[in-house]
Amino acid sequence: MRAAVAAGGRIAVRDVPAPEPGPGEALLSVLACGVCGSDLHHFAGRAPDAAPLVYGHEFTAEVVAYGPGASGPPPGTRVCAVPQAGGEIVGLSERYPGGFGERVVVAADMLVPIPDHVPADHAALTEPLAVGVHTVAAAGLAPGVALIIGCGPIGLAVLAALKAEAPAVPVVAADLSPARRALAVRMGADEVVDPADAEPYERLGAYGVGTAMGAGSLRTAGASGAVIFECVGVPGMLQQVFTGAPPKTQVVVAGACMEPDTVVPVLAVVKELRLAFVFGYTREEFARALDLIAAGRVDPAPMVTATVGLDGVAEAFTALAGPERHVKILVHPREGAR
Amino acid sequence: MRAAVAAGGRIAVRDVPAPEPGPGEALLSVLACGVCGSDLHHFAGRAPDAAPLVYGHEFTAEVVAYGPGASGPPPGTRVCAVPQAGGEIVGLSERYPGGFGERVVVAADMLVPIPDHVPADHAALTEPLAVGVHTVAAAGLAPGVALIIGCGPIGLAVLAALKAEAPAVPVVAADLSPARRALAVRMGADEVVDPADAEPYERLGAYGVGTAMGAGSLRTAGASGAVIFECVGVPGMLQQVFTGAPPKTQVVVAGACMEPDTVVPVLAVVKELRLAFVFGYTREEFARALDLIAAGRVDPAPMVTATVGLDGVAEAFTALAGPERHVKILVHPREGAR
Repeated sequence: MRAAVAAGGRIAVRDVPAPEPGPGEALLSVLACGVCGSDLHHFAGRAPDAAPLVYGHEFTAEVVAYGPGASGPPPGTRVCAVPQAGGEIVGLSERYPGGFGERVVVAADMLVPIPDHVPADHAALTEPLAVGVHTVAAAGLAPGVALIIGCGPIGLAVLAALKAEAPAVPVVAADLSPARRALAVRMGADEVVDPADAEPYERLGAYGVGTAMGAGSLRTAGASGAVIFECVGVPGMLQQVFTGAPPKTQVVVAGACMEPDTVVPVLAVVKELRLAFVFGYTREEFARALDLIAAGRVDPAPMVTATVGLDGVAEAFTALAGPERHVKILVHPREGAR
Repeated sequence: MRAAVAAGGRIAVRDVPAPEPGPGEALLSVLACGVCGSDLHHFAGRAPDAAPLVYGHEFTAEVVAYGPGASGPPPGTRVCAVPQAGGEIVGLSERYPGGFGERVVVAADMLVPIPDHVPADHAALTEPLAVGVHTVAAAGLAPGVALIIGCGPIGLAVLAALKAEAPAVPVVAADLSPARRALAVRMGADEVVDPADAEPYERLGAYGVGTAMGAGSLRTAGASGAVIFECVGVPGMLQQVFTGAPPKTQVVVAGACMEPDTVVPVLAVVKELRLAFVFGYTREEFARALDLIAAGRVDPAPMVTATVGLDGVAEAFTALAGPERHVKILVHPREGAR
């Protein structure tokens, strides 16, 4: 099969053996697959002499066949799938090539059929939206106001999930990029803030959230009513949240900062902040994300800023490194130049 | 009145004007007052030319009189009190001298009468125990096992509150100091660990808490069943918790690290840790702490390692800087050399 193969520090289209479904597994023919920030991170951190790898874990596909003992929706059915097989993440594993190739293999019990009226390109946003659904669930009860720090794919997925699951909650979204702020508005943000112009945390006051602490008070007030979603994941963000968050605020940390980061813990202590670090999603949250798209409660179309064939994957990885032009690039492995 | 006054970088007994109760305030005569770690921190960070200050916010006392418009238990009644007045913390304020003097003034509605059978020295532990009650409440539902990191006054208060509020929960307590580990055993720890000998987090496995993550799994298991109480508050502790904690663990951070600290956030992200930073307590939790002492469900006696007069305060501050000899030193302002 044709695939965009990462090897030797670059990505190039090659012919490679198609994967074969083992026991309990399904073979799928890929329709569309999004490029994820974790693909970029993984690729950037990979040694040039590492084994070749085909990325892509945000795919929609058609069922082709099943391995021994496996069953599921009949061949030809359009599905998306939690990208798992053999205890690994499909598309981040040398054993299970991902959706930037024509064929993928996944665990058969991870398939979720796509309703007929949902375009494959929309259903391909199920995986990132599932992260949003999971992240919003971690915030607990509906807050009085939500602040989303960072409007990349994760921040926008959180925004979409919030507006679908708790439409009455006003959402303030902050990002340095004008394009991403415009996208946040299109996806339902009630207010956007450029952190270079104004302090996003101060906007919470407009929604009745107190930022002042009782001077010297040993006693604590009730919960602030705000929830802050940290969706950037670079050094300095946690300390910014510690400094800016109102007392008694629930913080959900979806940004996965991989570098050493410096905080002053006592700031969080005296404010009694609560931090929920989140990662991934459950199978139920994945199915829920597709339901939200199918019901029209989330319109993922604005997030898709380009579609490319396999020969556009390398350029997509480069383009996504900057925030201005793109949010989600979809790859159509069976189209494009050949 | 006589008081141990912090001024010019040292603490010395002096005659100073007694405080007078303003509107809504009560004047008390101090019976006993514990030295708190926050007294030491505050003193260490105070400029030598700062205004004189009388520390002490963990006091029991007798009611002497009330200010204009204030009422409460009759004069002579033994009370403890949430140490608040005029929006400040009594004993950490230049306006409201604390319990290392013969008289204190507090807000009259903060008084809690002490049952007759409870010794004043035991009731003086109400304030630190209230921190333990508050910290345990922040952990949410009763966990399968609790790990307390650090057996100083806060860690021991958490231990006491845990054993009073959730006696069925096994508690593992870790401290580098043999004396503090011995005290933790006396106060009900099911197991103590010397972190120099063994990894405290690994002991959680003995209580059925899994430490392994599903390799590459995007899905997350249920909550780990463990709660970790961080009661040390020095740089490095948070990262140690991030590294050691089992996935899906609730962490309660009571240690107030005031210095910059380095963490790698992605460790907490992939484990989906939850952090609740805690500080202080409510008036209800303060009253609850006294109830637990009065009902015999917490025996604070083991925590008291010395009692001194006012002329022993300076030495007490020095002695408490090291962990080995003392946990809680009580000051009796109206006794001792004069």
